[in-house]
Amino acid sequence: MDFSSFVTSLTTSLIIFIFLVFIFAWLSRKPSNEVIYYPNRILKGLEPVNGKRTRSPFSWIGEALKATEKDVITMAGVDTAVYFVFLSSALGILVLSGVMLLPLLLPVAGTSKNEASHTNDTGAFNNLNKLAMGNIPEKSLRLWAFLIATYWVSFVAYYILWKAYKHVSDMRAAALEAPGQKPEQFTILVRDIPPAPKGQTIKEQVDSYFKALHPETFYRSMVVTDHKEAYKIWEELEGYKKKLARAEAIYTKSKTVSKVEGTRPTNRTGFLGLVGKKVDTIDFCNEKIKELVPKLETEQNITIKEKQQPSALIFFNNKLAAASAAQTLHAQMIDTWTVMEAPEPCQLIWKNIPFKFYQRQLRQYTVYGIVFLTVVFYMIPITVISAFTTLNNLKKLLPFLKPVVNQPEIRTVLEAYLPQIALIVFLALLPTLLMFLSKAEGIPSESHAVRATSGKYFYFTVFNVFLGVTIGGTLISSLKTILDKPKTIVTMLGTSLPANATFFLTFVALKFFVGYGLELSRLIPLIIYHLKRKYLCKTEAEVKEAWAPGNLGFATRVPNDMLIITIVLCYSVIAPVIIPFGVVYFGLGWLVIRNQALNVYIPSYESNGRMWPHMHTRILAALILYQVTMFGYFGLKKFLYAPLVIPLIIMSFIFAYVCNKRFYLAFCFTPLEIIARQNNKEIPNMETIFEAYVPPCLNSDKFDDADQFEDARSQAASRTRSFA
Amino acid sequence: MDFSSFVTSLTTSLIIFIFLVFIFAWLSRKPSNEVIYYPNRILKGLEPVNGKRTRSPFSWIGEALKATEKDVITMAGVDTAVYFVFLSSALGILVLSGVMLLPLLLPVAGTSKNEASHTNDTGAFNNLNKLAMGNIPEKSLRLWAFLIATYWVSFVAYYILWKAYKHVSDMRAAALEAPGQKPEQFTILVRDIPPAPKGQTIKEQVDSYFKALHPETFYRSMVVTDHKEAYKIWEELEGYKKKLARAEAIYTKSKTVSKVEGTRPTNRTGFLGLVGKKVDTIDFCNEKIKELVPKLETEQNITIKEKQQPSALIFFNNKLAAASAAQTLHAQMIDTWTVMEAPEPCQLIWKNIPFKFYQRQLRQYTVYGIVFLTVVFYMIPITVISAFTTLNNLKKLLPFLKPVVNQPEIRTVLEAYLPQIALIVFLALLPTLLMFLSKAEGIPSESHAVRATSGKYFYFTVFNVFLGVTIGGTLISSLKTILDKPKTIVTMLGTSLPANATFFLTFVALKFFVGYGLELSRLIPLIIYHLKRKYLCKTEAEVKEAWAPGNLGFATRVPNDMLIITIVLCYSVIAPVIIPFGVVYFGLGWLVIRNQALNVYIPSYESNGRMWPHMHTRILAALILYQVTMFGYFGLKKFLYAPLVIPLIIMSFIFAYVCNKRFYLAFCFTPLEIIARQNNKEIPNMETIFEAYVPPCLNSDKFDDADQFEDARSQAASRTRSFA
Repeated sequence: MDFSSFVTSLTTSLIIFIFLVFIFAWLSRKPSNEVIYYPNRILKGLEPVNGKRTRSPFSWIGEALKATEKDVITMAGVDTAVYFVFLSSALGILVLSGVMLLPLLLPVAGTSKNEASHTNDTGAFNNLNKLAMGNIPEKSLRLWAFLIATYWVSFVAYYILWKAYKHVSDMRAAALEAPGQKPEQFTILVRDIPPAPKGQTIKEQVDSYFKALHPETFYRSMVVTDHKEAYKIWEELEGYKKKLARAEAIYTKSKTVSKVEGTRPTNRTGFLGLVGKKVDTIDFCNEKIKELVPKLETEQNITIKEKQQPSALIFFNNKLAAASAAQTLHAQMIDTWTVMEAPEPCQLIWKNIPFKFYQRQLRQYTVYGIVFLTVVFYMIPITVISAFTTLNNLKKLLPFLKPVVNQPEIRTVLEAYLPQIALIVFLALLPTLLMFLSKAEGIPSESHAVRATSGKYFYFTVFNVFLGVTIGGTLISSLKTILDKPKTIVTMLGTSLPANATFFLTFVALKFFVGYGLELSRLIPLIIYHLKRKYLCKTEAEVKEAWAPGNLGFATRVPNDMLIITIVLCYSVIAPVIIPFGVVYFGLGWLVIRNQALNVYIPSYESNGRMWPHMHTRILAALILYQVTMFGYFGLKKFLYAPLVIPLIIMSFIFAYVCNKRFYLAFCFTPLEIIARQNNKEIPNMETIFEAYVPPCLNSDKFDDADQFEDARSQAASRTRSFA
Repeated sequence: MDFSSFVTSLTTSLIIFIFLVFIFAWLSRKPSNEVIYYPNRILKGLEPVNGKRTRSPFSWIGEALKATEKDVITMAGVDTAVYFVFLSSALGILVLSGVMLLPLLLPVAGTSKNEASHTNDTGAFNNLNKLAMGNIPEKSLRLWAFLIATYWVSFVAYYILWKAYKHVSDMRAAALEAPGQKPEQFTILVRDIPPAPKGQTIKEQVDSYFKALHPETFYRSMVVTDHKEAYKIWEELEGYKKKLARAEAIYTKSKTVSKVEGTRPTNRTGFLGLVGKKVDTIDFCNEKIKELVPKLETEQNITIKEKQQPSALIFFNNKLAAASAAQTLHAQMIDTWTVMEAPEPCQLIWKNIPFKFYQRQLRQYTVYGIVFLTVVFYMIPITVISAFTTLNNLKKLLPFLKPVVNQPEIRTVLEAYLPQIALIVFLALLPTLLMFLSKAEGIPSESHAVRATSGKYFYFTVFNVFLGVTIGGTLISSLKTILDKPKTIVTMLGTSLPANATFFLTFVALKFFVGYGLELSRLIPLIIYHLKRKYLCKTEAEVKEAWAPGNLGFATRVPNDMLIITIVLCYSVIAPVIIPFGVVYFGLGWLVIRNQALNVYIPSYESNGRMWPHMHTRILAALILYQVTMFGYFGLKKFLYAPLVIPLIIMSFIFAYVCNKRFYLAFCFTPLEIIARQNNKEIPNMETIFEAYVPPCLNSDKFDDADQFEDARSQAASRTRSFA
């Protein structure tokens, strides 16, 4: 890529971005689009737009900048606030690095006269390369400046990461100690309950076990049931209810149109409503609902009494007891009665809870194996698919396309793009696949599954995009070399990275201009919403569903940002011109996402910042990758003091170790200190807490029946009395 | 070594053993020796000998065999019982292996005609070698028998280890759930207390912290103090008290001897009582004691009030609360307020408690480094020392030895033995060195330090004795090869092991015959005791001190047994004749040590079997070493199915993982279940529990003063009232 085409690509991206920003400014002012641009505010019951409507089209920037962290937590939860800490940490590292590196390294590199590099370089992109480390001759004393820069970037990263970890830790503590009765703070999840002794149900076993171990604080238990059947019936029932509402809406509308009597909507009962008997929809749905309600009730009874699984939720009557119980070893055989803090009710993955200990382990390692294979061999199916999707094959498979395909213009375009389309389709499927795999591990909570997915996606991007592009398409053969001679990775990184600097410059620029432009303008959701509203939605509920904004999608967002920070860090000293690009990426991202977090997305769960240790570790991994690369590159430059980078690598590991020891466990468990700080003496409403965990397809009254709850309550009362 | 010299060595050992057993039978019947042969029974207040004294000299065998595990636990504690589980597991593995391997492999090997092995073998020790795997020709189908044997030994080991782990786990549970008020079950140890806020003492800080976190169950706290000074004074005081008692005893004795007036004993006040003013000992001691008592009191006050360290013992008013608190994260910054279960009062290493978190880490890794260097380079100082302790050097250094050394007979003997003596001295120093290093890690309890020492010693023996002998003296060069090409260890083990079979046969035989003979006869303690009693001891207390039996010394005993099991396992298939030797070692050991445990040794601490996971892991490590060796040896025999050993190695790792997951944590923490099983409603005497932890050199009243305990008690009372 020569310099002019680089500039062209950059300019194009910039123009697209500016265009999208104006689109956003224009569209977001139309009241009919408010549900797309301000759904979070609308659902929170706020005015869509702060202040008067005739404000400047760029006031959103001011608003995003003005919003404090507290505002973000109120509007979008702690997890989102932690994501901003991540963005601003990345930004901070790059800004502080840039302040030192750009004035220091650019003159050092620019004024160096390296005949060798000029001849080596194939003439392309000389202008930028002159400002990079490649322009320094071997063994030059100028390399000292680059060594100092390597240290500077690392220390900046340590400093910012340490402060960020501390900040997030406090944020998490503040969230946990906030008063209020979050059900998950009173609850623990017990798995691997051993088979109940004869003549006892699991429920009775659990109750007697926990009553003995926590005589004063145990409130009641809820045995996890296999409610697949009940859920199916419940879903069917809900479907008919929706259908009924929709049919009634259509009928009412047709009545108002024809003024006299409307046509009653009809449908067919067969496959997809296309075949079968024609029936009156309203009558049909009413009938079905009447039929399903008792069926559901019977199924609920059966589920609660007979489909008990060897897991349970245990409710305690105070937070300290629950936090303490969640961390304490209960059984002598430690693979039975394993306890953990209960996830939020909304993020429980019910079907994963009853998995047994060794089954979970087995699933986990199997999934790891599959992910490893996916990461390493992902390119193979894509290549195969590309080969099959050539034009000639397509013509054979779909002969009716022949006349279209035979036109020379269309032909050229298709031939050029078919492999890329295959790649894009495959890449688009990846997050779904990874999420499916993560859930298959047996992880019991949504937020944990998102973290697991993000981790897997991160490995994928670093291996396939970063290392794949850098080392070249021969990832598998490189892997073989690396396994045989682990040392070669260092020189390999050192040799290949500098050659690809321009590719990544364009990549980062494309990512931020086009990516964030699309993000801000929300063109695609807008179009889908308007189409749906016009042609599909009949009831209020359906319209609401059409604009439901979803959540921020950390599972793919975080690893994508991670890829950028990895790239920018690795190139920061080799080609310091990349730093401004990174700064723009994270700066723009911070701004755009802040607007989206305040106005658009609605988090579907709250893990109180448990994502942070995950992010922290990966930024550190990127830093270490960067240090190893620098070590290799200094070696290639025959710099005598290259080994001075090694203490830095060791330091990074020590830093990781210390951070881990100082902060990490407090993200896994709730420290007692934090709960004790709360100082709220109000008596929790235990019934509400219990009901929060009842799955919607099961009726909470049923639990009480099964429970003989009155009996338990009277026992508890007598206990309290005896204590007095 | 040829066959006849092997037999000679064996016979000599056997004769020594029989001689020592008779010595024991004879000496142990003399009443004056009872304190040497039955001290445990005497100190427990039992009759030294069960039943009538004129019993057969070998009745101890019957008694040892008859004693149940419960007897052992009563007489010598759970840790000793666990040691017997270890011995019988090793015995079980070897017996079950032998039952299959000897009838299967000896005929297979014996009837094989391998010309190559006969010529290869340098003629030595052919008779035994014919019964070993070396006698099988390459690629022979007979190797299948050896492969099956390899599997058999492994499965036997898995089976026995699993059962043993389960058994020990139950034993530990039974010990923990036994009723009674062990102080350590009510107590937790808190380290890394952050600096107290201004105007607060550490004591106040600790109290308010734990009162907030455990409002109902916190009883009181004891801040750890730096009582080095107080201890020094206390020790001096105790020394003078002893001296006084001794002087009085001498005086009384001299009075009875001279009938009229005894000579008052005198001593000199200077260095070692050799120089300085001569004084009357009784007066001098009385004076000193009078002087020291108020000094100690002042120091105690200062210590408790001003020398508080950032660690504390926290007492809870019930066991469930203490067990739960010891496992719960307390602080948001997890490197502060770290909690653990308190060790027994008697095994607390006070000076290690106040070390800070990162200091402990640093110490640990430093110690690991030193141990690594010690293990790898231990032979170097020995070689150096040997070079310096040649006769000529000795003559130069100690010229007065010249006439003795110049005699030719003495000269020969000395020249032959000097290097060995240096080696023995160095080896004798090793356990002390390793114990010192383990304590320097900052480990807070004696039993943990013993485990750590045992681990280090195990590495030492395996590396220096087992691998050292096997691979040859060039351990360092071998290490270099291994680091360069890790694969070579497999072939190296395969090549070198078979050649050394006879050495190890003799080694094992020597160990059990001479070692256990000496152990049983207790000749050395007996001689020392009689010498001391005759020439040194004047008071009853001094006599008692002279026969105090000490404990079993697991720190060196366990790794020595480990070495034997490693050797026997590794040779079990290669040269099955070693199995009977192993069986005799562990059988005899079991018998002799059982006698010693029941009658002689007194455990100085009780860790409720926490040694077991340590032993289990090391037996498994030996098993894996054995499997790797077999893999190498099958490869050398060009056996096509040698890779079939690999699944076995993987299986061992899975087995280790599963055992660890199923049992291990219950050895680190006390599971709530076990405590809840106790079902004892008695109210603990908290004052006794608290006092058990007061170091003997500090006065417990002082704590109460510092505590304003009355105040705390009244608060507790008002809390209970408000709860009612």
